[in-house]
Amino acid sequence: MPGSVQSIERAAAMLRLLATSPGRLGIVEIARSLDLAKGTAHGIIRTLQRVGFVEQDEGGKYQLGAALLHLGTSYLDVNELRSRSINWADPLAARSGEAVRIGTVLEGQVLVVHHVFRPDDSLQTLDVGTLLPLHATALGKVLLAYDSTAFGALHELESFTRRTLVSRRDLARELVAVREAGWACEISELTPGEASIAAPIRGYGGLVVGAIGISGAVERLCSAAPRPHARLVGFVRDAARAISRDLGSSRH
Amino acid sequence: MPGSVQSIERAAAMLRLLATSPGRLGIVEIARSLDLAKGTAHGIIRTLQRVGFVEQDEGGKYQLGAALLHLGTSYLDVNELRSRSINWADPLAARSGEAVRIGTVLEGQVLVVHHVFRPDDSLQTLDVGTLLPLHATALGKVLLAYDSTAFGALHELESFTRRTLVSRRDLARELVAVREAGWACEISELTPGEASIAAPIRGYGGLVVGAIGISGAVERLCSAAPRPHARLVGFVRDAARAISRDLGSSRH
Repeated sequence: MPGSVQSIERAAAMLRLLATSPGRLGIVEIARSLDLAKGTAHGIIRTLQRVGFVEQDEGGKYQLGAALLHLGTSYLDVNELRSRSINWADPLAARSGEAVRIGTVLEGQVLVVHHVFRPDDSLQTLDVGTLLPLHATALGKVLLAYDSTAFGALHELESFTRRTLVSRRDLARELVAVREAGWACEISELTPGEASIAAPIRGYGGLVVGAIGISGAVERLCSAAPRPHARLVGFVRDAARAISRDLGSSRH
Repeated sequence: MPGSVQSIERAAAMLRLLATSPGRLGIVEIARSLDLAKGTAHGIIRTLQRVGFVEQDEGGKYQLGAALLHLGTSYLDVNELRSRSINWADPLAARSGEAVRIGTVLEGQVLVVHHVFRPDDSLQTLDVGTLLPLHATALGKVLLAYDSTAFGALHELESFTRRTLVSRRDLARELVAVREAGWACEISELTPGEASIAAPIRGYGGLVVGAIGISGAVERLCSAAPRPHARLVGFVRDAARAISRDLGSSRH
């Protein structure tokens, strides 16, 4: 690959491996997972440790390092989608009474770049940085509807509930409806009893760069049919349009 | 440097450079900042782009990429200090009525690994991943008091307010008091009118691995002297002890 540096690719693969493994990993497991000689793996992981991207525990096993957290949240500081969205996410949570998330596509999933808790006293976990499935969330359906590359790259559609769309044909039909309506919803397709509604955020030239949506209990978000309440859909679309306006008018 | 891979170090330096620069950077600026030939810098940044750690805008300039956000927050998932602390941070916020932060040392600063908002309806910004000064926060004073390496490595002590401790001798004296008392405070030393109180979190064998603290308006946190309210200090120390107990008993 011209212009590509193999050791950096291997280092990135190692970081991803550590990010996706539930516990810490030893050097032998790392070398085996990435099909590297132990000495090669060791040289890379020691360098990652020196720069703070990896930490070693007292038992000699490796995990991600604290420097990555700072880099990751620095990404948020420079991310224009997020900085433009923040001011509209809080009012959307207040008007709808539901949790708000803003997402963008990352490697075949939805990356949550902003999350406002539902405005009540319930215990909620911050989802920023989390990856959600594209085909089973309203955010993801919006992103797929306007990104044929992401749709083409979808592998198997994992089934989360009985209602998850697991056939590409059903999903493709749904995405046509999303483009026609200008918003998406998902009812019990990721978690039974939970629903979500989302609309596209457009950047310069109308390009869809992200999605904003609300999620919560089906009985709060939907009427009997079940169909999302038009009032809530309106709130979500209003917020998406406001952010799009900010993004479109601010690009240099 | 034996076992160290130069291109990975350069890639890490490039990511840090992008994280600390206020805007996007062009390849010439990047090469110049890191004293690299333009071709070398280009090979590295293209690889970083391929793995999603860097993104290029329509004008050809570079910024951090979305994959870093996911890696960074994955660090939080595997971070034991944070996972053990979360259950105690919410009750501390509720009891004290103030914002709670948990921090650890990263490269001469306090890295915030968890943040619970003050339990009211005011607009607050999530601080996770932010770096705070060691010498001008209660969290940082606690971390310094038990980490002589970090104290030794402190360069100049930046002045934030008229009350910031800017002399190493004054700071060293304060750290003795912190060790004797088992907690630290800071009053208007980082931001006028704001105060903070913190206590150490100890891991296996009693090693201080982090700090937990509250922060808020001086008139709420402190009595007339001004001195932190003993009741609030008690809440902070209780939480720190509870987390330390969890950490100490859970290590394998």
